[in-house]
Amino acid sequence: MAQKTTLKEFEAVFPKLEEALVEHAKSYNLPEQALEWYKRSLETNAVGGKCNRGMSVPDSTSLLLGRPLTEEEYFKAATLGWMTELLQAFFLVSDDIMDGSITRRGKPCWYRHEGVGMIAINDAFMIETAIYTLLKKYFRDHPRYIDLVELFHEVSFQTEIGQLCDLITAPEDAVNLDNFSMEKYRFIVIYKTAYYSFYLPVALALYLLDIATPKNLKQAEAILIPLGEYFQVQDDYLDNFGLPEHIGKIGTDIMDNKCSWLINQALAIVTPEQRRLLEENYGRKDKEKEAVVKKLYDELKLEQRYQAYEEKVVGEIREQIARIDESEGLKKGVFEAFLAKIYKRSK
Amino acid sequence: MAQKTTLKEFEAVFPKLEEALVEHAKSYNLPEQALEWYKRSLETNAVGGKCNRGMSVPDSTSLLLGRPLTEEEYFKAATLGWMTELLQAFFLVSDDIMDGSITRRGKPCWYRHEGVGMIAINDAFMIETAIYTLLKKYFRDHPRYIDLVELFHEVSFQTEIGQLCDLITAPEDAVNLDNFSMEKYRFIVIYKTAYYSFYLPVALALYLLDIATPKNLKQAEAILIPLGEYFQVQDDYLDNFGLPEHIGKIGTDIMDNKCSWLINQALAIVTPEQRRLLEENYGRKDKEKEAVVKKLYDELKLEQRYQAYEEKVVGEIREQIARIDESEGLKKGVFEAFLAKIYKRSK
Repeated sequence: MAQKTTLKEFEAVFPKLEEALVEHAKSYNLPEQALEWYKRSLETNAVGGKCNRGMSVPDSTSLLLGRPLTEEEYFKAATLGWMTELLQAFFLVSDDIMDGSITRRGKPCWYRHEGVGMIAINDAFMIETAIYTLLKKYFRDHPRYIDLVELFHEVSFQTEIGQLCDLITAPEDAVNLDNFSMEKYRFIVIYKTAYYSFYLPVALALYLLDIATPKNLKQAEAILIPLGEYFQVQDDYLDNFGLPEHIGKIGTDIMDNKCSWLINQALAIVTPEQRRLLEENYGRKDKEKEAVVKKLYDELKLEQRYQAYEEKVVGEIREQIARIDESEGLKKGVFEAFLAKIYKRSK
Repeated sequence: MAQKTTLKEFEAVFPKLEEALVEHAKSYNLPEQALEWYKRSLETNAVGGKCNRGMSVPDSTSLLLGRPLTEEEYFKAATLGWMTELLQAFFLVSDDIMDGSITRRGKPCWYRHEGVGMIAINDAFMIETAIYTLLKKYFRDHPRYIDLVELFHEVSFQTEIGQLCDLITAPEDAVNLDNFSMEKYRFIVIYKTAYYSFYLPVALALYLLDIATPKNLKQAEAILIPLGEYFQVQDDYLDNFGLPEHIGKIGTDIMDNKCSWLINQALAIVTPEQRRLLEENYGRKDKEKEAVVKKLYDELKLEQRYQAYEEKVVGEIREQIARIDESEGLKKGVFEAFLAKIYKRSK
């Protein structure tokens, strides 16, 4: 089996990319104070996560080739991986402002840093633009350069429509359970999370190796989008049923009026009285009201429903992986690796 | 002389582009509520301005060709023009949040509309992405497609570094005149305004006609950037010395702690006592303190300094236009048209 990259190896690539970005900015004679600001924004926002999305680009590339990557190949794949991390940073910096979040990765959100505030919006733009600066610098001569650019544009749009739908479906300050539906839930999850987190890294690996045929892209999408949906359903499940010591935080989906998998499952099976309970207690910043919803979730046996969902969806994904046509260079191992990382995770 | 487009003709193109964007969003099965939101955001933020930037693309194209445009040519040129308007809308929606502005084009800023708030950040992203959706739909087969995409990326970056420098040089809540300098002023003006407002429309016309040779682009940049700088200096001048009934607003640069041309000119010539006056009265939300600064501007004869600056810079620009090499298809008339629109404007 192909070598798996480590966070240390992957992070070792970032300083080179940062240097390229700073050199690029310098070529416009950016004043020193602004240059320092840009560096601080890049380092604070792009680095420090688990880098699962980013690392999956070199990992997938290696699995597609069936061998470890050369140094040059690793650098190129990791650079594309860092672009997925930059895309995520662009969205997280702005999501945190839109959601009024307090912390990110255990530290204050960027917009809450001293002296930053709403300048963070422009910083988010600059992080997004960094993707295209790096693409131009390192991939201008790649045969699929324009496809790589268009892929980032499309995935950005997909994430933005997912975010829009999420924001207008579940505003934190106006609880209206009529707004929720399993259909909207799936739309939000697929567009806001699955495309950029699951489809993008594999599509990048396929383009990098110039085996992004329409058939390969379609097969990858057909598996990775359900896989991404399953991942987010897990996230929602763990928010309520996971152990805080495993997931590293205390779930707040109920108090935050989140359009989560659990509330949508509940809404589909409640009695009129139970629905009234939900309407009175969901989405309130009140521990006692949250406890009422948690108790109802238990009574509705949502944990068992989740287990059944997981077994079903994983069975379907496994079948799909087994049916993959590898004739154009796609490899089942790419998807098996993703599934193995996710299946029955507790964090 | 080639036909000049009217706002009515130019605006008549927008509904087709809006329909293309809505159809594109629909192809992702965006829920109805989100689709309506997207339309409302596009219409509110992209339409309703003077469209000087947008209209200068068909105008420049016509001047370059030396004849009126055919219907098909006009549509293509106006579509590129609308992309400059979308780029501007993307920046204005977010600038208004960053600056805490109240109104835009005589109406409440988008983020201050009922129920919008910080969702406006995501709306700004979607307006930006619309540029690339339109480029792909209408210019995918153009021989300079990738150059057009890269041009928008580069001009976005330039505007973002200008905005960053502006935001950290002149925060509204912390007056520090040591932070200001004519050098920083020029950096901010050139990057935040001149590239997207002056260079971009002409570069687009050159690419559209496939005469964007390195020489033509360089000549265009060498004239349009000083022209854009002159335009912004005028803006700063009019903010204080213009007539409110002409400029359509009451200037607030002094109270807003803006790094404007006037304050930088003043700082260069003040006595120590006058500097103390500025330090005590600039950038305060106080009409009496503002009046002290205004009086000092008069004593320093900044109006006359501006007149002298204007004559000098316009003379230089005219000389540069006269020296243009038209051998690769560039035309002096393009720049003469820009200059004529700006010279001695009172609004």
